Order: sequence, then C-alpha cells, then structure tokens
Amino acid sequence: MHGALDDTICAIATPPGEGGIGVIRVSGIHALDVAAQVILPRSGKLLHELVSHKMTVADVCAPALTAGTVRGVQLPARFVIDEALVVVMKGPHSYTGEDVVEVQCHGGPVVLDQLCRGLLAAGARLAEPGEFTRRAFLNGRLDLAQAEAVLDTIRAKTTRSLTIAQSQRRGELSRQVELIRSDLVTALAHIEAALDFGDEDITFVGKAELCGLLEAAGFKLQRLVESGNEGRILREGAVVAILGRPNVGKSSLLNALLHSDRAIVTPIPGTTRDVLEELVSIEGIPVRLVDTAGIRQTDDPVEAEGIRRSRLAWQDADLVLILLDGSEALSDDDLSLLSSCEAAQVILVLNKCDLPRQLSRAQLEALCPGHGGMIDISATMRLGLDELRGTIRTRLMTGGLESREGVLVTNLRHIDACSRALLGVTQAQQSVADDRAGELIAVDLRIAADALGEITGVITTDDILERIFSEFCIGK
Amino acid sequence: MHGALDDTICAIATPPGEGGIGVIRVSGIHALDVAAQVILPRSGKLLHELVSHKMTVADVCAPALTAGTVRGVQLPARFVIDEALVVVMKGPHSYTGEDVVEVQCHGGPVVLDQLCRGLLAAGARLAEPGEFTRRAFLNGRLDLAQAEAVLDTIRAKTTRSLTIAQSQRRGELSRQVELIRSDLVTALAHIEAALDFGDEDITFVGKAELCGLLEAAGFKLQRLVESGNEGRILREGAVVAILGRPNVGKSSLLNALLHSDRAIVTPIPGTTRDVLEELVSIEGIPVRLVDTAGIRQTDDPVEAEGIRRSRLAWQDADLVLILLDGSEALSDDDLSLLSSCEAAQVILVLNKCDLPRQLSRAQLEALCPGHGGMIDISATMRLGLDELRGTIRTRLMTGGLESREGVLVTNLRHIDACSRALLGVTQAQQSVADDRAGELIAVDLRIAADALGEITGVITTDDILERIFSEFCIGK
Repeated sequence: MHGALDDTICAIATPPGEGGIGVIRVSGIHALDVAAQVILPRSGKLLHELVSHKMTVADVCAPALTAGTVRGVQLPARFVIDEALVVVMKGPHSYTGEDVVEVQCHGGPVVLDQLCRGLLAAGARLAEPGEFTRRAFLNGRLDLAQAEAVLDTIRAKTTRSLTIAQSQRRGELSRQVELIRSDLVTALAHIEAALDFGDEDITFVGKAELCGLLEAAGFKLQRLVESGNEGRILREGAVVAILGRPNVGKSSLLNALLHSDRAIVTPIPGTTRDVLEELVSIEGIPVRLVDTAGIRQTDDPVEAEGIRRSRLAWQDADLVLILLDGSEALSDDDLSLLSSCEAAQVILVLNKCDLPRQLSRAQLEALCPGHGGMIDISATMRLGLDELRGTIRTRLMTGGLESREGVLVTNLRHIDACSRALLGVTQAQQSVADDRAGELIAVDLRIAADALGEITGVITTDDILERIFSEFCIGK
Repeated sequence: MHGALDDTICAIATPPGEGGIGVIRVSGIHALDVAAQVILPRSGKLLHELVSHKMTVADVCAPALTAGTVRGVQLPARFVIDEALVVVMKGPHSYTGEDVVEVQCHGGPVVLDQLCRGLLAAGARLAEPGEFTRRAFLNGRLDLAQAEAVLDTIRAKTTRSLTIAQSQRRGELSRQVELIRSDLVTALAHIEAALDFGDEDITFVGKAELCGLLEAAGFKLQRLVESGNEGRILREGAVVAILGRPNVGKSSLLNALLHSDRAIVTPIPGTTRDVLEELVSIEGIPVRLVDTAGIRQTDDPVEAEGIRRSRLAWQDADLVLILLDGSEALSDDDLSLLSSCEAAQVILVLNKCDLPRQLSRAQLEALCPGHGGMIDISATMRLGLDELRGTIRTRLMTGGLESREGVLVTNLRHIDACSRALLGVTQAQQSVADDRAGELIAVDLRIAADALGEITGVITTDDILERIFSEFCIGK
C-alpha cells in the first residue's frame, strides 16, 4: 500500500557512493518544520523565513542533539555534521508541487546517512521509489507519460534515446495522444447525445463526419503503434550478436565498434567489462553487442556447438552479425553457421578486407540468400566500420520512422495502450460501416479513449501507478 | 603540471551512476559566459542577469546546436537535452571564490555527459581532481587543513570520524596550530630583533619568558602528536583480526559485530561483501574486521599454518581477537595460537558462554600473560557484545585522548609536521638551556614555525598541493 500524501518524505537524491556533492530532498506539507530541526541557516534565520529558491549556507546538525534548540542559541560546534547549501522551494512552485527543502551537502555516505536519520527523527519518512515524481503527478505537475519520461531521461543510454525521452517529458507524446483522445471523446459525446435524444441511428453527428474522424484517429494510432518497434529499441537497446568461428576477429570487431563512439566524460553504467556483452551507441541507437564466443563449451562437438550457439543468438538477438574471414576459404564451421542462418536477421561481415580476398560473394549469396547486407571490413585497420554501423542502424530502424517528424512511442505500456485504442477505433469503424447500433460504436470508442487516457494518466489505477513508480530510484 | 587559474573548469560533482539528481559545477572568470551557451533560463533572461544564489528553471541544450543562438529566439524543442535547475553564485561568495554556475539536472549518465561535453565545447576544461577545492584554497576561502577536512568529510567512515573532520573543516585544528605558530614567530621576531641590534645573547626577549613560551608550545605540540595515533585510526580505520580454529564461531562473531551498528539508510561504500573483511563502526571507530580463516591453506600442516596465519595478523592488525570455545578444552590449534601471542595486542574472547564452561581463566592467564582483556560472549545469542565493543574501543584509543577536550590530529601529513615542529622546539629549548647563540635558537624556531605553516598552507609548495588534491574526486 502506498504512503499517505500528507506524510513528509525524504530521500538521498544523488547516486550512492562518494562524490563532491550529495543532495537530500524533503517534500510535504511539513517539509519546512521537519527540516528546520536539523538545518540551521548561518544567517540565524529560520528555514520558514528564507526566500523561496534562494540557496543559503546552513549547518547540518546531528539529530538527537538539536531537539529543543532555541533559535539564536549557537549549538556547540561539535554537533555540526556538515556545512551545506540549503534551498527552500515553496509549493506549488517545486518539483512535487509541495513545499520542498533541498540540502546540498558534501557527498560522503556518512554525512548523507546522518542527515537522513536526522530528518527521519524529526518526523519525515523515507520516500518510496519514485515517490517524489508520483506526487508531482498526483499534484498535476506532470502527466503520467511525462513522469515515465523522467525515468527514461535518467536511464537513457544514448543521446538519441535521451532526445526522445526529453520530447516525451515535454509532453509531445501526451499532446498527440490527447488530441486523438479528445477527437474520440467528442465523437462519443455526439453519439451519446443522439442516443439520449432517442435517436437510434447516428445522424446526430453525421455518418460521413464520424467516418472521417475515425479514419484520421485510426491513421494516427497506426503510426504510433508502428513507431513502437523502433521506439522500444531506442529506449531499451537492441541486442546484436556477433557470430563467427574462433580467430575470425570477433574481439577485434567488438573493440573497433566499442572504441569508436565512447563517452569521453562518463562511462555508461551497467557496461561491465564483461567478455560477453558490451553496450555501445551505434548512430544513437543503444546496442548491446553480444560476443557469443563466451558461451562456447569446448568439450562439445564442433558442429553441434555451432548450431546451439547460433540458435541462442537467433533467439535473443534483434540482429546477428556473421563474421567471416574474407582472406580464407569457408571452413566447415563457417558453413555450419551460414546454414543455420535466418537470413533477414543477418548481416554478413567479411573481415580482413586489407588482405587478398578468397571468398566469393556469389557463393555467400547462394548460401545465405536474402541476407540483410554484406560488408567488407578490416577490424584491426578500422576500415568499413562506418558502413557497418550505417547498415546496423538501417536494419534496426526498418520502418524509417525515427527520422520522420512526429513522436515515437518507446514504452511497452504505451505501445499496448495505443494498440488497444487502435483496435477499438477499427472495430468502431467496422460497426459504422455495418450500420450497427450507436451503443455498440460507443462501447468501442469508450474502450479506445480509455486506453489512450491510461497513457497520460487521465484514466489510471493504483496498480498502474504502483507498477510505474516502483521502477524509479529512491529520491526521484 | 597544474592548470592555470584563469581557466574555466567544469565537472560532474555527484557520484557516478543513475540517480534522481546530478549536479555539474562550472567555476572561473568565464563561468557565466561558458554556461550561458548551453543553459537557457526559461524566463528568457541571460545567466548574467540571474540573481546570485537563486535557483531558476532552465533548458539544457545540446552543444553543437546552440552556437549562434540569439537571445529570445526559442530553440527547436528537440535540441533540449534536459530541464534543469540552475544557480549562479557570483564570486567571491561561492565555494571556489570565483563565479560559479551549478546545474542540477536529472541524474542520468548520458544527460550529464552531454552537458559536460557542451560546456567543454563552450570553452571550459574538465576539472582535475580536487581542483574546485584547490581554487578555494588559493583564493583564501579555506586553509589547507580545512581543504583536507573536506575530503575527510566525504570519506568519513563513521559518525565519529565525520565529527572530527567537521571540527577540522571549521578550522579548529588550524586555529590551535596557528596559535602555537604565532607564539613561535613572536619569539623568533624578538630573537632576530636582538640579533639585529647586535645583542649577542637573548636578553632582548628575556630568557625566562622565552623558556616559558617554548615550554608551553612544546606541551601543546606534544599533545597534538600524541593525539595522532588515535586520530589516524579514527580517520583511516583500525584493522582488527579475528583468529581462531575452525568452528569456534568466527563467522558468527563477525556477523554479530556487523549487524549491531549498521547504517540503515546507506551502506558504507567499499564494504564489499567479502568473506575476508568487513567494515564496521565500533562505538564510532571505523574498524576493518579481518576474518583470517579465509587465508588458510588447508594442505599446510596445521601447526605451521596456525603460526603463519597469526603472524600475518600480527603484522597488519592494530588489534587481534583470539576466539576460543569456552565450552571445550583447549585444542592443539588453540595452544599454537596462544603461544604465538603478542599479548599487548590481544583480546581473548571466550565464545559460547551460554554453555557450561570448560576453559580455566587461570590457564589462559598463564598461557597469554598480559593480554589486553578476556571477555565471555555468545556470538549466536548476542551476549557480551557490548563489553567486547567497549574493550576493543578502549584498546584502540589507548591514550584516552579522543574523549579529552581539544582537537585531534588525524592526518599523517599533519602528524609529521607537528612532530618536526616539536623536535624544533625541543632543540630550541636545549639551546636556550645551554646558553647557545641566538642564531642557533632562531634556526630551530624557524624550522618549527615553518613545519606548522605547512599544515594550514601558510608555507606550501606545488608538490604538497599536488599530493593533497590528487586524492580528491573530480568535481570537488
């Protein structure tokens, strides 16, 4: 069960660990009263007297020792646990829409721990994951799709996914969804009005007008649903497996792709230096490169192992790179790989293009007809990599939607809601075409409108909220 | 070589990883000009027009796309990478004493990376470790001991070490050191004045007065040096090894000590769940508990292994707990352990005190005379643990200084400087007693005063600064 809205909540909002700065947030109707017990502005003012949004130097005091402190009486210096910058943001002009106190102290775990304990002792409770953003939603500061975009912003793995998350955070998806929903609701109102007036058919709104409206809505919804596949990949990343026999250059290729577009300032977290998997950005698409060599069991017979390995890759991958040594004839291992090849999912990569070629393209075309591309590279000489990246991107973004104008649906929950809305609209269109009763059309339109309402949170349940916000980190 | 002071520097100030909030700091004479190229306040104002210390909502824009932006012209929404809170802190009223811009954006690695890149493109350079604090020192915002206390605050492992770091950050050590130094400098001035007037002996200042002054200084320095052992332990932590034969309850004891005083809000970083070592707070003292069982090689003969194991423990540990099973007679393993015992460093811990005792205290006294305590516990029933903790604390804080009034020296650099100052004063005292020439006394006093000056940074070299600030994290 979720905590009450009149609780005052607090949490560490910065990532765990040591850093220059750590931020603790307090939010709720008693945020100022609670924080005032452990935060003493150097100016001698009370927190309540501070100008909203103005940063002030303050002493952070140990919890037990500040109880009963009288204003103006200097606490013994030894009870101060840190010097901090404090800022009061009075509701509704704050992230949550409530009174918020933010304390920026030194980023030491013990400092933050002590300050948190102090706030808890003063009457706050520890915020649940996403509770600040949940409150922002409940207080009307942002809608549900925007709230989810906050999480997507934090989790974004490439600049491209960040840009999409930001567009959603600014409400671009919500606006588009609301436009469609508002059209459906208008149609619904007309139909229901006609029904109320005892008019059994739909002349009240005009059949032609209704058809046009449904068609437009259906078209827009179709586009949104279609954008979902690429959207999902841009949000969650695509899995690209690299297959190839030993010594064909898989590690070199992995390294070449890895070092070509790395963050210079911060490594992307979660990219453990695991032999098996690396996260790279390929033209803005977050790609999880899987080197399947790692899962090889050398005591298995070569052929069986090859098939098993590639089967694993087919199962999980959005795309498979089959790496061949262009300077050598095909080996049995290569042939085994190519024979198990689901062509549409494959890019053939011919390594060592700096050496004389021994592989015939025609032969490969015959072995793997309908493949998604054949590219010459030299992983060690860094040749052909741009073309490879371009092809990977084209294969993953098959619809070409991501370059079109308009918003992308990236979130499975939204894709699902759009699909249900589209189904409702399609059924309503059919009912209209069949001249069925207005009530039936109304039911379908209601389903469609409600599905869209789930995206922005006009229609929502505690269950949906619980599921969404439990994915957040504490402190957001 | 260290970067120039007129560079504008920037860095991510929050710990790496995902979090609700990430903070980026910019500092330098061009901080506002640089930040203005990527941070656009929503109000339409320029950064330069913002009220100092007031938080404002702003758009963070992608670097390449903001160049040449004309004020008032709204950038296309798709180039905004985040919505952030920005605050300008005009020098000298900032951490560094320079103009500072702080941006609080969503704590996503890609967001922070993009903003950093934007700032770099706009003319900032990435700050070196500790460079913000170094600038604060160079601009006179804090002295060197205070700067070091900033790091100690972030690194503090227990509340007690945090309190000491804070006392040092507030300048309490610096004040005490400066008082002594100022006395020495006064004495020095008198002696040198006397020498200038051709007065070969030290009657100018008065021998009795000089003796009194040196004695007082020597006494204070002696106290500071003595506080160093405990100070060092409180800052860096003590190593306490647990020795005992298998099944005597080492893991239970480790767990009992571990779970008794854990942080509820944040785990202390660096405490990997390693079988061998755990960091606990024992009455405010950071203690690294080492379970030596892990280093046992089972194919070694038992006796040799027991000796080798305990020898390792003696070498590294500040304190050794020898754990015995009080409900059984001593085994050969136990005897081997006790025979290699350096008594002063040992606490004998008799486990399973809830069972009938089979061990004679007298026998143990005979086997390990002069040990530092003998305590009955039951690790599983959690009996006797408070007494054990109290004894560990007493053994580590042998001087009892930490409970006394006055400051603790915690930093090896400071301990070393105080020791050199004490040596100088002692030698000066000897020279005075021996009626030696004023020049000789002056040399010793100069050495002592300069050593103390190194603590606060009145006297310093690039070398010292480099060593100190390179330990900091980037962004502090």
